[in-house]
Amino acid sequence: MDPSVSAATVGRLPAYLRAAIDLSASGLASVSSERLSEEAAVHPATMRRDLASLDIAGTRGVGYDVKYLIVQISHVLGLNQEWPVVIMGSGNLGKALANYGGFSERGFPVAALVDIDAELVGTTIGGVLVHAPPDLAELVDRENIMVGVITTPPGVAQEAADLLVSNGIRSILNFTPTALETPADVTVRSVDIATELQILSFYRQRGLAADVGTGVPLEP
Amino acid sequence: MDPSVSAATVGRLPAYLRAAIDLSASGLASVSSERLSEEAAVHPATMRRDLASLDIAGTRGVGYDVKYLIVQISHVLGLNQEWPVVIMGSGNLGKALANYGGFSERGFPVAALVDIDAELVGTTIGGVLVHAPPDLAELVDRENIMVGVITTPPGVAQEAADLLVSNGIRSILNFTPTALETPADVTVRSVDIATELQILSFYRQRGLAADVGTGVPLEP
Repeated sequence: MDPSVSAATVGRLPAYLRAAIDLSASGLASVSSERLSEEAAVHPATMRRDLASLDIAGTRGVGYDVKYLIVQISHVLGLNQEWPVVIMGSGNLGKALANYGGFSERGFPVAALVDIDAELVGTTIGGVLVHAPPDLAELVDRENIMVGVITTPPGVAQEAADLLVSNGIRSILNFTPTALETPADVTVRSVDIATELQILSFYRQRGLAADVGTGVPLEP
Repeated sequence: MDPSVSAATVGRLPAYLRAAIDLSASGLASVSSERLSEEAAVHPATMRRDLASLDIAGTRGVGYDVKYLIVQISHVLGLNQEWPVVIMGSGNLGKALANYGGFSERGFPVAALVDIDAELVGTTIGGVLVHAPPDLAELVDRENIMVGVITTPPGVAQEAADLLVSNGIRSILNFTPTALETPADVTVRSVDIATELQILSFYRQRGLAADVGTGVPLEP
């Protein structure tokens, strides 16, 4: 495998995996690169280049073997093992995510919640126990935690990230709008629901203005 | 206001708004553009250009008026009104989001859930009633629904989007990995938790491989 797989290629691998899983579920054993790229909504040439960089090739006239695609891409993405998660902050979103089965289904079981609120520590949310911040070191060790999910208020997100990093966590999923500063060997991915909603309302408001004839041009 | 505000500028407005709200909460009445841009984690020149394109200017030697910033940016983003939301799909994530107070707090109250499962229709989740898909037209009208949130299985996300669009919804927040096809006047924003987790596990696995001395270069 090409050791320098680009960030853009990595970002598209989940789409290829999902497309292959969908095609397999519909009974296909092999798939043309045209069809696979259509399912993944990626340009065919880009997809062929991405897969070739992972040493995944199709057979001329036959296409890609669907099961092989699933096994190989899952392997490259590290999905052949579990990645236990700790959720930092048990406010509305932390609670919702602890109750959300989707993490566990995808190989990211929620092992613990961490919160500074002494009244919450010791309670369970969605079957997950809430711990105090000083417990994190022991938790990481005992539960083999690999990923930290930050759902704190924005003002303390950096503090939560620092605590994760100082306890050896190198993968962070940040649900706050705070831009986190972390060492170079830490990967941070962001999911910002509030920002996406505000961008939607911006365009909707402009659309409404345009609808009633103010003639404001849209550039979505 | 410059009618052709770029998508990149729109994408940064929520960060300026959050920075101004944080500064206001800490008691500041005015703020230098250096400080504001630092809080928003945006380059100062970019920020000044963005704000100028909205006719928001600071005063030399004083900076920006914090309360004025909040009022103006909120207005531009359309946050001076409520944008009722319908959640399409009451699986794990739909349920979690119905229970999540963050939508309502930010002016996006969840007015209804829609699901095809006849056993769920008529029940309430997080105080929100579940409706059958044919009810959507009446719901949009009665509840003045402006935004559709899609949390269905990926295979039926396009169908959910089509139903929203045919009922007049022009703003969609898509939590599925499906690339949606919609008319040009519909704005779609995506939040893809599964893909972000898979990207994290890719880099974590490579990091682990590097840790144990296989020498795989990292390109995060």
